[in-house]
Amino acid sequence: MKPVISIIIGSTSDLPVMEKAAQFLDEMEVPFEINALSAHRTPEAVGIFAKGAQERGIKVIIAAAGMAAHLPGVIAASTPLPVIGVPVKSTLDGMDALLAIVQMPPGIPVATVAINGALNAAILAVQILVSGDQVMMGKLIAYKESLKGKIEKANEELKQVTYRYKTN
Amino acid sequence: MKPVISIIIGSTSDLPVMEKAAQFLDEMEVPFEINALSAHRTPEAVGIFAKGAQERGIKVIIAAAGMAAHLPGVIAASTPLPVIGVPVKSTLDGMDALLAIVQMPPGIPVATVAINGALNAAILAVQILVSGDQVMMGKLIAYKESLKGKIEKANEELKQVTYRYKTN
Amino acid sequence: MKPVISIIIGSTSDLPVMEKAAQFLDEMEVPFEINALSAHRTPEAVGIFAKGAQERGIKVIIAAAGMAAHLPGVIAASTPLPVIGVPVKSTLDGMDALLAIVQMPPGIPVATVAINGALNAAILAVQILVSGDQVMMGKLIAYKESLKGKIEKANEELKQVTYRYKTN
Amino acid sequence: MKPVISIIIGSTSDLPVMEKAAQFLDEMEVPFEINALSAHRTPEAVGIFAKGAQERGIKVIIAAAGMAAHLPGVIAASTPLPVIGVPVKSTLDGMDALLAIVQMPPGIPVATVAINGALNAAILAVQILVSGDQVMMGKLIAYKESLKGKIEKANEELKQVTYRYKTN
Amino acid sequence: MKPVISIIIGSTSDLPVMEKAAQFLDEMEVPFEINALSAHRTPEAVGIFAKGAQERGIKVIIAAAGMAAHLPGVIAASTPLPVIGVPVKSTLDGMDALLAIVQMPPGIPVATVAINGALNAAILAVQILVSGDQVMMGKLIAYKESLKGKIEKANEELKQVTYRYKTN
Amino acid sequence: MKPVISIIIGSTSDLPVMEKAAQFLDEMEVPFEINALSAHRTPEAVGIFAKGAQERGIKVIIAAAGMAAHLPGVIAASTPLPVIGVPVKSTLDGMDALLAIVQMPPGIPVATVAINGALNAAILAVQILVSGDQVMMGKLIAYKESLKGKIEKANEELKQVTYRYKTN
Amino acid sequence: MKPVISIIIGSTSDLPVMEKAAQFLDEMEVPFEINALSAHRTPEAVGIFAKGAQERGIKVIIAAAGMAAHLPGVIAASTPLPVIGVPVKSTLDGMDALLAIVQMPPGIPVATVAINGALNAAILAVQILVSGDQVMMGKLIAYKESLKGKIEKANEELKQVTYRYKTN
Amino acid sequence: MKPVISIIIGSTSDLPVMEKAAQFLDEMEVPFEINALSAHRTPEAVGIFAKGAQERGIKVIIAAAGMAAHLPGVIAASTPLPVIGVPVKSTLDGMDALLAIVQMPPGIPVATVAINGALNAAILAVQILVSGDQVMMGKLIAYKESLKGKIEKANEELKQVTYRYKTN
Repeated sequence: MKPVISIIIGSTSDLPVMEKAAQFLDEMEVPFEINALSAHRTPEAVGIFAKGAQERGIKVIIAAAGMAAHLPGVIAASTPLPVIGVPVKSTLDGMDALLAIVQMPPGIPVATVAINGALNAAILAVQILVSGDQVMMGKLIAYKESLKGKIEKANEELKQVTYRYKTN
Repeated sequence: MKPVISIIIGSTSDLPVMEKAAQFLDEMEVPFEINALSAHRTPEAVGIFAKGAQERGIKVIIAAAGMAAHLPGVIAASTPLPVIGVPVKSTLDGMDALLAIVQMPPGIPVATVAINGALNAAILAVQILVSGDQVMMGKLIAYKESLKGKIEKANEELKQVTYRYKTN
Repeated sequence: MKPVISIIIGSTSDLPVMEKAAQFLDEMEVPFEINALSAHRTPEAVGIFAKGAQERGIKVIIAAAGMAAHLPGVIAASTPLPVIGVPVKSTLDGMDALLAIVQMPPGIPVATVAINGALNAAILAVQILVSGDQVMMGKLIAYKESLKGKIEKANEELKQVTYRYKTN
Repeated sequence: MKPVISIIIGSTSDLPVMEKAAQFLDEMEVPFEINALSAHRTPEAVGIFAKGAQERGIKVIIAAAGMAAHLPGVIAASTPLPVIGVPVKSTLDGMDALLAIVQMPPGIPVATVAINGALNAAILAVQILVSGDQVMMGKLIAYKESLKGKIEKANEELKQVTYRYKTN
Repeated sequence: MKPVISIIIGSTSDLPVMEKAAQFLDEMEVPFEINALSAHRTPEAVGIFAKGAQERGIKVIIAAAGMAAHLPGVIAASTPLPVIGVPVKSTLDGMDALLAIVQMPPGIPVATVAINGALNAAILAVQILVSGDQVMMGKLIAYKESLKGKIEKANEELKQVTYRYKTN
Repeated sequence: MKPVISIIIGSTSDLPVMEKAAQFLDEMEVPFEINALSAHRTPEAVGIFAKGAQERGIKVIIAAAGMAAHLPGVIAASTPLPVIGVPVKSTLDGMDALLAIVQMPPGIPVATVAINGALNAAILAVQILVSGDQVMMGKLIAYKESLKGKIEKANEELKQVTYRYKTN
Repeated sequence: MKPVISIIIGSTSDLPVMEKAAQFLDEMEVPFEINALSAHRTPEAVGIFAKGAQERGIKVIIAAAGMAAHLPGVIAASTPLPVIGVPVKSTLDGMDALLAIVQMPPGIPVATVAINGALNAAILAVQILVSGDQVMMGKLIAYKESLKGKIEKANEELKQVTYRYKTN
Repeated sequence: MKPVISIIIGSTSDLPVMEKAAQFLDEMEVPFEINALSAHRTPEAVGIFAKGAQERGIKVIIAAAGMAAHLPGVIAASTPLPVIGVPVKSTLDGMDALLAIVQMPPGIPVATVAINGALNAAILAVQILVSGDQVMMGKLIAYKESLKGKIEKANEELKQVTYRYKTN
C-alpha cells in the first residue's frame, strides 16, 4: 500500500491538531504517511522530501505549521504537487501562521484552510485526489451527506429544549 | 401559538450562547422557534427555510454563526424579512465571525449585533416586531427601565465600599 | 407627508456616504428626514431627538458616525425604536467606528451594517418598516429581484470577454 | 471632605479593575467618590452628573467602560472638566473599548490610558489636580521615586539568580 | 472544447483582479469558463451551478469575492469538487474577505489563496487538475522553471546598479 | 509672556499634524512653545527638557510621535507634569504609534488622544490648565458651545438637500 | 570573567520568559549579566547603563519589555552596540510590545525577535558575537545541528503512531 | 574589495525600498553585494547562497521580502551568520510580512527591523560588524551624532514659525 497523501508536521506537538486529518483519511481508506520536517531546522530534508514526493507516488501534500509558518510555502516551492497549508495556533491566535501561509507571492500557491483546520485539509486533499474516480467521489458525497445528519440530530435535541413561548 | 421570531443556530453547541435570546423572548411573551441549520452542511434546507419563513408568519429571523459565518447572509439572500446576525466567538476572538456577518455587500443587509450578543439580538427583534403595537412597546420600555435598576443597585453596593478618602 | 425613517449624520461631510440611503428611500417612496446631530457636540439635542422620535411617528432610525462612533448607541439608549448604525470610514479603515457601534453592551442593541454600508442601512430600515404591509413587501421583493439583473448583465458582458481557451 | 476626583464605572463588575485607582487616591490622600452610571442604561443620569460635576467641586473625572465604551466620551461631551478614560477588557482583548474611547472626534477629547490601566488613570488625575500645589506635587514626586525602589529590589533578587556564566 | 475549470466572479468589477487567472489558463491551454454569480443576489443560480458543475465535466472551481465573501463557501457546500477561494480587496485591505473565505467550519473546505491572488488560484487549479497527466505536469514544471528566469534577469539588472562600495 | 504649554514634535514633518493644536492655543490666548526633540536621536536633550519643564513654569506637555512612538512616555518618565500623547499616523494607519503611546505600564501614565488628534490634545491641555480659573473656564465653555454652531449650520445645509420623499 | 552580553529586564516578573536566554548562554559558555532597569521608572539608570556598556566590554545587549515597550529603543538611542528587543506578552497577545519595539524610526534600529522569543534573542546575540571566532562559530553550528535531532526523534515517535491507512 | 554584507532582495521591484541600505553602506565605506533570490522561485539558489556566505567572507546578511515573507527565515536556516529581515509593505500594510519574518520559531532567529526599514537594517548590520573595530565604531558614533543635527535644524526652523501666543 503506497501512500498518496503525505502529511508533514513541524514537531510531534502538532500531532494533536493533525489527528483529525489522519482519522478522516483512515475513514476514507486513503493510504497516507505522516512525517516531521522543519523548514528551519532541517531545510535540506524538506528540499529532498519536496523534490521526491511526486516520483514516490504522492498526489497531495498537507503541511501544518505555526508562528512564522514557512513549511507549506517552502515545500510548494520544490514540487509541482498541490500543497495544502494548515495554520497552527500558538501565538497571536494563529493570525501569524495564517498570514505566513496564505499570503504566498505570485507563482507558488498554497491551498490554505482555517486555523487548526486539519479535518478540512484532509477533506480537501481527498477532493483533489478523487477527481475522475467514481468510487472515491461516491464516498466523499456520502461523507458530506452524513454532515446533514448532525444538523438533523441537533434539531431533534432542540425539540427537547423547552421555553414557555417556544413552539415546537 | 404561531412563532413570529425564528432563531437559527448552526449546531447545538451554539445553544449556550443563544440561551439569553430565548429567555428574553419568553420574558416578553413573544412566540418563537429555534432550529439548527447550516449554510454549509444543509444549504438546501436553509434555502427552503428562508423562502418559506415569511409565509409561515415569521416576522424576524435571528441567525447565529461562528468562524466564516455565512448563515445570516445566506438566509438574508432568500427572504425579504429582516435578519439579525449574531457572531459567535470560537477562533480569533470572534473577529472572523463579526466580519463575515457585518460586511455584507450592497443589496442584502444583515443587522449585526456584538460578538456573542444574543440578548441584544432578541431585544432588537422585539423592537422590530412591536412597531405600532402599543402593548408590546410598553413592555419593551418597561424592560429598558428595569436596566436602570441594575445601575441603582450598583450604586447601593458602591456605598458599602469604603476607602479612607472616599466620600459617600 | 410625515417621515417614518429618520437619518442622522454627524456632519455634512457624512452626506456623500449616506446619499445612497436617501436615494433608496426615494426609490421605495418612503418618507424620511435627514438631520445632523452629534453625540459629543450637541448631546442634549440628541437626547431630545431620541426621546421624541417615536411620538413624531418615526419607525426606524439610521445613524451614521465615524471614529469613536457613539451616535447610534447614544440614540438607542433613549428610544424603544430600532436603531441602525452605519460605521463611517475615516481612520483605521473604519475599524474603530465598526467596533464602537457593533459591540454594544447587553440591553441596548444597535443593528450594525457594513462600513460605509448606507444602502444596506436603508434596505434594512424598509425591511423593518414593511412587516405586514403587502404592497411595500412587494416593492422590496421587486428590488431584490432587480439585483439579479446586474448579475445577468455581468454575464452578458463576460460573454464578450475572449480568451483562446475560454469557452462560451 | 468634598470629593475632587470622581470615578464612574458602568457596573460593580468593573470595581475589581478600578480598585487600584481608589487605593492610589487613598495613598495620596485625595478625596474622591465612586459611582455607577451607564451611558446606555441611564443616559439622563449621566447627563445630570456630567453637567453638575464642576459646580460640585469635582476637578477631574475618571470613567471606565468596556466593549463599545461610550461612557467617557458621553461624559466629556457635557462637562468642561478633563475626563480620563479607562478601556476595560472584556472582549477582543479590550481593543474595542480602547478604540471606542481614544478615537474621539475633534472637539471633545478623552485622556485615554492603557487597557485596564486604572492605576495610571488615578496618577494622571492627581498630576492634573496638583498643578501649582507644591505639597501635592511633592507627594507625587515621592511616589515616582518609590517606583525606582521596585527596580532596585529586582536587581537585588537578580543577584541571587545564578548561572554558571552569569557574572554578578 | 468543454471547460474543466470554472471561474466564478461576483460582478464584472472583479474581472480586472481575475484576469491573471484567465491568462494563465490560456497559457497552459486549459479550457475554462468565466461566469458571474452572487451568493446573495442569485442564491438559486449559485445552487444550480454548484450542483451541476461536476456533471458538466468541471474539475475545479475558482470563486472570487470581496467583503463578507460567502461565494466560495456557498459553492463548496453544494459540490464535491475542490473549490479555490480568492479574497478580493475592497475594504479593510481585504482582511474581511480573507477571514470570510478561509475560516470555513469543519466539513466544507475552501482552498484559499492570497488576497487578490488570482494567478495563484489558477496555478493551484492546474496543479489539482494535472495529477497523473504527464504532459500537463511537464507544462507546469516548465512554467515554474520560467519563474527562475525573472530572478536571473533581476540579478542581471542589479549588476548595472552601481554604488561605490558595492562589489559585482 | 512665559509659555505654560509645551508642544514637542519629533521632526518638522510632524508640524502639519500639530498645527491645529497651535491654532487652538492661539485662539484661547494661552502662551505656548514648540520644540523638536527625539527620544532616539537626542535622548539627553529629552531628559534635560523633561526634568526642567516644571521649573520653567510649564504646566502641561503635549508630545507627538509616530511609529514606535516613545517620546511621550520617555518625557512622562522624567516629569511630574501631565503629558498628553498624540499618535502620528505614518505606517500601519497609526496603530503602532497608538499602542506605543497608550499602553504605558503602571506608574507612568500618558494621556492619549486619537491618531493625529492634535486639536483634542490642545483642548485637553487647556482643560487641565484652567482648573479653578473662571475666565479660562468660560472661554473653554464658549468654545464648546461654538461646536454646536457647526451642527446647526449642517442642519441648515441639509434643508437645501432635496429628495422626493425627504420631508423638511 | 567579564560579561560580554547584557540582558536587561523591566522587572523580575519577566525573568521566567528570559530564562531560556540565560540557559542558552550558559550552554554556549558565554559570560553574561542580567539586570533590571525600567525606561519609565529609572530613566537615568538606563541612560548610564547604555552609555557605559561598550566601555565595560559588553558586545551585545538583549532588552525585554511588555506593553508600550520602550526599553530596547531607549537603550539603543544611547549606545553604538547592537540591541536585541524581546517583546513580552502581557496584553493584546503581545502585539503592543511587538509594534513598540520593531517599528523604530530611521536611525536607531532594534533587532527584534518573536513575542516571548528569549531563546532566539540569545542565539542571535551569540551569532553577532562570534563573527570571526572559529571556536564559537563551531559551537553555534553544533547547536544548530542538534536541532535536527529533535525532528529525527519526532519522526521516530511518528513511526509508533498507527492508523489503518497510514504507511510506515 | 570583498563584500562583508550581503543584501538579498526578492525582485528588482524591492530595490527602491532597499536603496537607503545601500546608500548607508556606501557612506560607511563598507563593501557589500546585492543579489536577487527568491525562497519560492529559486529555493536551491537560496540554499547554495546561504550555505556558502560565511566562507565567502560575508559577515551579515540583510534579506528583504513582502507578503508571506519566507526569504529571511529560509536563509537563516542554512547559515550561522546573523540575518536581518526587512518586511516590505505590499498588502495589509506590511503586517503579513512583519509577522512572517519576526515570529520565527525557537532555534532560528531573524533580527527584524521596521516595515520598509531598510536604513535601520543597514545601520544594524554595521553595528554587528564593527564590534571591536575602533575606527568603524567611531564612524558609527559620528553618524549617530549627525542625527542630532536634524533635530537641531528642526528647532531652527520652528523658531521661524510664528503664532501670536507662541513664545520663542
